[in-house]
Amino acid sequence: MPEMRQDITTGIWSIIATERAKRPEMPEIKKNKPALPAHNENCFFCSGNEQTTPPEVYSIRPQGRKANTAGWLIRVVENKFAALNLNNHFLTADYQGLYPVSHACGVAEVVIETPDHSRQISSQTIEEIERTLTTFKDRVLTLYNTPDIKYVQVFKNCGAMAGASLEHPHAQIIAVPVIPDYIQHELNMATDYYKRNNRCVYCDMIELELNDRQRIIYENDSFLAIVPYAAKTPYEMKILPKFHEANYENINIKQLKELAITLRSTIYRLDFALDNPPYNWYIHTAPVRTEKETCYHWHIEITPKLSIQAGFELSTGMYINVTVPEDCAAFLKNIDDTL
Amino acid sequence: MPEMRQDITTGIWSIIATERAKRPEMPEIKKNKPALPAHNENCFFCSGNEQTTPPEVYSIRPQGRKANTAGWLIRVVENKFAALNLNNHFLTADYQGLYPVSHACGVAEVVIETPDHSRQISSQTIEEIERTLTTFKDRVLTLYNTPDIKYVQVFKNCGAMAGASLEHPHAQIIAVPVIPDYIQHELNMATDYYKRNNRCVYCDMIELELNDRQRIIYENDSFLAIVPYAAKTPYEMKILPKFHEANYENINIKQLKELAITLRSTIYRLDFALDNPPYNWYIHTAPVRTEKETCYHWHIEITPKLSIQAGFELSTGMYINVTVPEDCAAFLKNIDDTL
Repeated sequence: MPEMRQDITTGIWSIIATERAKRPEMPEIKKNKPALPAHNENCFFCSGNEQTTPPEVYSIRPQGRKANTAGWLIRVVENKFAALNLNNHFLTADYQGLYPVSHACGVAEVVIETPDHSRQISSQTIEEIERTLTTFKDRVLTLYNTPDIKYVQVFKNCGAMAGASLEHPHAQIIAVPVIPDYIQHELNMATDYYKRNNRCVYCDMIELELNDRQRIIYENDSFLAIVPYAAKTPYEMKILPKFHEANYENINIKQLKELAITLRSTIYRLDFALDNPPYNWYIHTAPVRTEKETCYHWHIEITPKLSIQAGFELSTGMYINVTVPEDCAAFLKNIDDTL
Repeated sequence: MPEMRQDITTGIWSIIATERAKRPEMPEIKKNKPALPAHNENCFFCSGNEQTTPPEVYSIRPQGRKANTAGWLIRVVENKFAALNLNNHFLTADYQGLYPVSHACGVAEVVIETPDHSRQISSQTIEEIERTLTTFKDRVLTLYNTPDIKYVQVFKNCGAMAGASLEHPHAQIIAVPVIPDYIQHELNMATDYYKRNNRCVYCDMIELELNDRQRIIYENDSFLAIVPYAAKTPYEMKILPKFHEANYENINIKQLKELAITLRSTIYRLDFALDNPPYNWYIHTAPVRTEKETCYHWHIEITPKLSIQAGFELSTGMYINVTVPEDCAAFLKNIDDTL
């Protein structure tokens, strides 16, 4: 029988339309699918084309090598098409009539994950992914020490249908002078739960999932990857730290390595199961300078783009999911993630 | 200079990326675009195929004509693929562990706007649109008198990219036993504003827009069509009743006719300006049985699907709009909407 399920971290209701659901099936892997070349001379992000991007704000490269030349392992550059600018200070008191308005204050950066044009996360080494996650940590710490910045969003679009305009492996970071609506909503939900139960809602959810085990895709000492109970769309996934911590950027070296392994395992299963679908993933971390941080618990959300958000979803913020979360989790769990 | 603008009815921040913006230009209308036929014998919703849909729950047809036969002007049938069922009562007290869950209680209906396969709203007569709007009113009233139902959503998907699986002109109605997240958010914002100002936030917004006039596309005695100040996406539009009223279903005959004229004018301009883009539109009306109704103000939102919601939008609930709302409004306003 179809169910309605509510997510306890967001309040969002999803209709799990089991009667329409088809059991997941292994796709026929297109073995002859042409692979991308490791180098594309017309790509702005490929090695040798450093002069085609704005200057580096951060990089990892062997000591002594010059900035904005080849030989790097990872580069962070300002987004060429940034709509945000730190020179525009945020003016909270500014109104046009009734309407709050500000200069578009903020930072938009691109993280070029590797010089190799073809190596998306599923085929990267753990060391490469650790470097990317370290870069995120360093940039979030720096941006949270920047005047005016209240929230930093790390995210990745993979595939044209998920909004990626370039195919070279890259992620993005946007820092804004406000707490965005979705983050504020999660903070409020976590605070309300804490007031009622004197416990973190994410910690309680993790305990439940570890006991129930039906929705677990992968776990190690520090992390748990699940299909959420009230998944909004087919194959939605969450990665949760098993330890209570509000801010991603406080991650330590051991945890970084375990997160890299978790992320590779999770994305690899998704790519294998659904034949490299378009997807987005992003880190939700606590904003700085709020009192609500202690009840928050950072996490990663991974959302493959397999369906269209139509009128019902747009108008209500509710979702109809034509797959059963427990079926999706079992299917992904059974994929062999060894390289 | 790029701006960040906040919507006072939703709290959502949009980055208006004026430096990336291109001025709107009139598209080259493809005059030889093949028109759909008025009748398609394989279409479930065409006249003569009444037996291929679930039975009518409502229709408008000449007196004496039999239900579920040809000769109707408008038909409402249950959605064949409904994930919701009224026989499943909503159980607020039901939990699976920590997680709120319920049978999928509710109603999903399809409103077949016309027997003519080809007549989308831009080419319908005012009388046809009035019939559709009357049908919405009657169905919402009926559904709000149904046990368990707390909110009724009327919406339309037009074009495959906007989620329409059938091309025959039709809208949908979904009635649910909870107040959806987005609606609750609007109710909370309206209530907070009322507490602070002792006024309706929508009424204040209408007054501002009528004075400013830069974002008005169309108006008549009862209605105003605007591009919102903090539009989330290019050519987003809102239709607002100038009179204060929380519930759409209380609309009277004079207002119905003026709404039909407003809706036709607005959708016609959109179809003409952007060469029949995919779009969604929906009515936000107050839920029944809440105390917050009096501060609410029903309205229609129209959102053409011209861009992809990517990682930034998904992760934050913020938007980057590459058009300037005032430019979009001026462009749409200058289109001649006379038939």
